Amino acid sequence: MSITIKQIAKDLQLAISTVSKALRDSHEISAATKARVFAYVSEVDYTPNPYASSLKGRRSGNIAVVLPEVADSFFSEAINGIEKVAQEKGYHVMVYLTHDDAKKEQAIVRDFRNGRVDGALISIASDSQDHRHLFDLSSRNIPVVFFDRICAEVDTASVVTNDYQCGYDATQYLISKGCKNIAFLSLFDDLQIIKNRREGFRRAVLESTLDAHKDMILYLTNDETKNKEKISELLSAKNRPDGIIGSVEKVTTQAYDVCNNLAISIPNDIKIIGFSHLQIAHLLNPSLTTITQPAFEMGKTASTLLFKSLEKKNTAIAREQIVIPSVLIPRGSTG
Amino acid sequence: MSITIKQIAKDLQLAISTVSKALRDSHEISAATKARVFAYVSEVDYTPNPYASSLKGRRSGNIAVVLPEVADSFFSEAINGIEKVAQEKGYHVMVYLTHDDAKKEQAIVRDFRNGRVDGALISIASDSQDHRHLFDLSSRNIPVVFFDRICAEVDTASVVTNDYQCGYDATQYLISKGCKNIAFLSLFDDLQIIKNRREGFRRAVLESTLDAHKDMILYLTNDETKNKEKISELLSAKNRPDGIIGSVEKVTTQAYDVCNNLAISIPNDIKIIGFSHLQIAHLLNPSLTTITQPAFEMGKTASTLLFKSLEKKNTAIAREQIVIPSVLIPRGSTG
Repeated sequence: MSITIKQIAKDLQLAISTVSKALRDSHEISAATKARVFAYVSEVDYTPNPYASSLKGRRSGNIAVVLPEVADSFFSEAINGIEKVAQEKGYHVMVYLTHDDAKKEQAIVRDFRNGRVDGALISIASDSQDHRHLFDLSSRNIPVVFFDRICAEVDTASVVTNDYQCGYDATQYLISKGCKNIAFLSLFDDLQIIKNRREGFRRAVLESTLDAHKDMILYLTNDETKNKEKISELLSAKNRPDGIIGSVEKVTTQAYDVCNNLAISIPNDIKIIGFSHLQIAHLLNPSLTTITQPAFEMGKTASTLLFKSLEKKNTAIAREQIVIPSVLIPRGSTG
Repeated sequence: MSITIKQIAKDLQLAISTVSKALRDSHEISAATKARVFAYVSEVDYTPNPYASSLKGRRSGNIAVVLPEVADSFFSEAINGIEKVAQEKGYHVMVYLTHDDAKKEQAIVRDFRNGRVDGALISIASDSQDHRHLFDLSSRNIPVVFFDRICAEVDTASVVTNDYQCGYDATQYLISKGCKNIAFLSLFDDLQIIKNRREGFRRAVLESTLDAHKDMILYLTNDETKNKEKISELLSAKNRPDGIIGSVEKVTTQAYDVCNNLAISIPNDIKIIGFSHLQIAHLLNPSLTTITQPAFEMGKTASTLLFKSLEKKNTAIAREQIVIPSVLIPRGSTG
């Protein structure tokens, strides 16, 4: 028979809530008290039972972060922002990767139903079309906040950046640098953030003196080999672009590879700007001009909204969209 | 009252095990059958209850991956290898980040005790000294496999790369390129893999005609600003090194930054080689010579060992160390 939290509190002459918070590593509890509690529970072999608690309707102390991948620097930095808040609140963060597979996303989210997590922060898979699993979470009183790749149909809060404006600004920037023929390297067709970036690009081309026919959009996927073939084809054409906007980090570095293969000089022959949070963008050859998303801030804000809901009795989150602007950082790839 | 799996099997005229496997998205079940099962459970509102199952001693269907960070390309790629195997086995992967904080690692692992996960793959925090929480998992019948940053005291399997040999080879490579004064950028003092890389470096210097006094080791941490100050100091000294070995990715790119700041030309003034799995190492200026770890293979192998144990009744894993060699990939930074 394992010892109860009540008994631990008694033995240590602490309040039950203090012991409980200490065990969750809450910032409200001093390091000294936590050390005492941890030393004691190690000794007496206390094991919190998350399942028993969940069955009684109490909380798991976990939040889930569901996102496509961690290889992209945007997502790895967003996790840091999320964890900063979660740690302050004494929660554990569990990261689940969908690899842009809607079926995997459904299976993961389906698994959240029975108290495994108290809430979720989700950046949806790019091929996510059937959103029933997301509606389902709300209806089960598991609050969700979307960030970056949002699902607009679900009534909740979301945190995004100003993708449309950034698509527009990136295009205008290339035009200001003398580009007359700009290609947009898109990713998938159905992801809202990519659509917004693309629409911003289209608008800027329409408003410019550039020939709207030259409004070139290349649709790429997660298949690196095929992407490079498509980009090679584009850059080998007679009327090849003199400017490229990469809608995400990986298609931008793929464009670098193709330029190297075809001995096309960046920025002399072609100028490149990419949506990216790459920490080492300045170390590339040439250094990469980026639209840098506020990844850490977006994660932090989404997480704060989720905890605001978790701290209330009624966990419903009102529909609200918070927009945190990105920043264009000029570097060598645009001359 | 929610419907049971038995009833679903009856309604769909399938075996209970087939329904169960389909719900776990097992590869043993055809896509068509899975589609039928998923469509039906969406309709009838079936919810698997992981907590109830766990209390009855059944499995959670989750494995945990505990690692320091995901910003490092080694870890993000290792996760891909782990997920590949887990997906085939119909398991969910939950990723937990310790940020090299031993207390956080303890809190996370403590949380695994009561059936939340069936097993864990761990790459330990660099300041992890007290390993009781790791022993504790084994004694509770939760199998653990270590990868990369292992805890040698715990009796179980681990997957590493040939760090000592690679430290040795990297040093010999710089010597073959004419370096006479090589510095090793170490990370922390107590991480076994870094020790091994460093010892390989030391051995190569001792065996060479280089003055052993010039065996320079700089101890760095996770504090980027301080690291750069230390590297700046090293590279501003009169007798500055003409070769650098970066023991991990981030200290290597920090060395690039410092060289740029001090206008030290790579590879003319100084040659650099780094332990890294960076996908875009070839796009850096200059392209970075790397010791590339088999990150995907290491994740895959560790995961395979864990599932071998989970598929048995007795989950104890015999002590065994699997070594998968890294590869030195010469690029521009070493001339």
